[in-house]
Amino acid sequence: MPERALFNLLDLAGIFVFAISGAAAARQRDLDLFGIVALAFVTACGGGIVRDLCLGALPPIGLADWRYLAIATLGALATIGAYGWVRRLRYPVLLFDALGMAMFAVAGTQKALGMGRNAETAILLGMFTAVGGGILRDMLLGRVAVVLEREIYASAALLGTLLVVLADHFHWGAAWATWPGLLACFGLRYLSLRFSWNMPRFGRREGGPES
Amino acid sequence: MPERALFNLLDLAGIFVFAISGAAAARQRDLDLFGIVALAFVTACGGGIVRDLCLGALPPIGLADWRYLAIATLGALATIGAYGWVRRLRYPVLLFDALGMAMFAVAGTQKALGMGRNAETAILLGMFTAVGGGILRDMLLGRVAVVLEREIYASAALLGTLLVVLADHFHWGAAWATWPGLLACFGLRYLSLRFSWNMPRFGRREGGPES
Amino acid sequence: MPERALFNLLDLAGIFVFAISGAAAARQRDLDLFGIVALAFVTACGGGIVRDLCLGALPPIGLADWRYLAIATLGALATIGAYGWVRRLRYPVLLFDALGMAMFAVAGTQKALGMGRNAETAILLGMFTAVGGGILRDMLLGRVAVVLEREIYASAALLGTLLVVLADHFHWGAAWATWPGLLACFGLRYLSLRFSWNMPRFGRREGGPES
Repeated sequence: MPERALFNLLDLAGIFVFAISGAAAARQRDLDLFGIVALAFVTACGGGIVRDLCLGALPPIGLADWRYLAIATLGALATIGAYGWVRRLRYPVLLFDALGMAMFAVAGTQKALGMGRNAETAILLGMFTAVGGGILRDMLLGRVAVVLEREIYASAALLGTLLVVLADHFHWGAAWATWPGLLACFGLRYLSLRFSWNMPRFGRREGGPES
Repeated sequence: MPERALFNLLDLAGIFVFAISGAAAARQRDLDLFGIVALAFVTACGGGIVRDLCLGALPPIGLADWRYLAIATLGALATIGAYGWVRRLRYPVLLFDALGMAMFAVAGTQKALGMGRNAETAILLGMFTAVGGGILRDMLLGRVAVVLEREIYASAALLGTLLVVLADHFHWGAAWATWPGLLACFGLRYLSLRFSWNMPRFGRREGGPES
Repeated sequence: MPERALFNLLDLAGIFVFAISGAAAARQRDLDLFGIVALAFVTACGGGIVRDLCLGALPPIGLADWRYLAIATLGALATIGAYGWVRRLRYPVLLFDALGMAMFAVAGTQKALGMGRNAETAILLGMFTAVGGGILRDMLLGRVAVVLEREIYASAALLGTLLVVLADHFHWGAAWATWPGLLACFGLRYLSLRFSWNMPRFGRREGGPES
């Protein structure tokens, strides 16, 4: 029971920080009040909504459960009301974002496995739960998806989902299907931030001095 | 029966003007004939298609009912053939766009409620029916979604869906679940156009004189 | 049986070249390793995934069948490892892209018809199977969808789907519902490339000399 409560808390904390990230991006682009709330909601709940569409889990939980919309709206209002504060707290926000992302990756994978999908579907949908909201946010803003461009982010989500699928495959029980994935995903993301690790790039190599 | 006929007429008029808005945007970006028709179709039917996906109402009506495609194509061809005319008629087009948007918001909410979804799902999907087509149009054109950036548009849709959900909750009957929402949504949108009302913005406030 | 094997081969070849096109676009934009693989996968499988969502064929085959992900990843790695080679082979890549696109159009239409959808749904989803991956690729990169802007591409897909639907309507049998559509779609695309045919455009006509 306390584990369940911790999980719920982390989930809602994830929604909140994802909403902040969406709202901050919307505010930078000078969107109006509605645009900011909408972008906060899409960033926080969009990945889960697409996952539920692909799973046939209708209606998507992000649309049907009022708490998601409420907390996303709260995150948007907090960003509007305390924008300077949000910017100064950049580090804790990144930390919670990493926690939320790890949560989303693990929870998305578990939901897919719980509905009887195979390992590949669970991995892909777990990853999309974690990174899909940010991708939709960037699509709405007409810019290249940051997640695809920068840093160890999706790769951390991949690591988390793999550990969940592994534990599920060998029937190691619920705790093993949760905590190693959660910690590894969060840990890899945190370390990559701490030490500025990046995934390799290959573009513009042939470009010469101007690249 | 006459009410039903009026409703159908408004629905198809909404499709037509949404198609014009999509086709005009495509034409400005120099898309080819196919691109113009595709953008007209997506703008007119995209919101409803995503709504139907989220409701599990398959196949989506926008794909299965030939009249939607036919009228969207007609709107695209009208825009191509009479572009100057469409631009000079900017005001009636905005008027019909407001009518279509109000129609879509009300009809989307009613469809979700009719399929047994809860109030929050109905509100969110009603709003997305109204604004989703325009958002998809802008995503295809690689630009920030206008709906999120400008004017009282989504807020008017929200007002309309709220009135529908309210009337449904208190069992006030079909007429009350239709007309107040339709009129309030159209009215708010019309007044905001007439008097150039805008939603508040918050971005760039700290930017100083150059912002 | 040999026909079935040929079909499977073409399908996987289509996935491979679509993945190359996605990975090449991602590499040009300087995305990281994960971004390149993700864009390859979305370009190759995105159209089919959305088609399956609209058909209610869950989970989408592109998520559940490991071969799709494997071949898309292979295409991405090939693009990274042999980028100069991919660029020099631009012509065969275009050729295989045309083959893959024709395959996707025909297979998408047949899947929709096989699930009992009407002709219009089958045509629209067949077309989206063929062009949707490229559209999603461009949306992720924040640019106007190339498919809507350029050349005879979607029109070739439309021709292919029409021939499939026609053959299905008159019960001409599986061969007639496959080969004419496949050949016409591929042929029109090939000829349009060979002779630089384009769809008519209408934009900027009133722009004067600077347009």
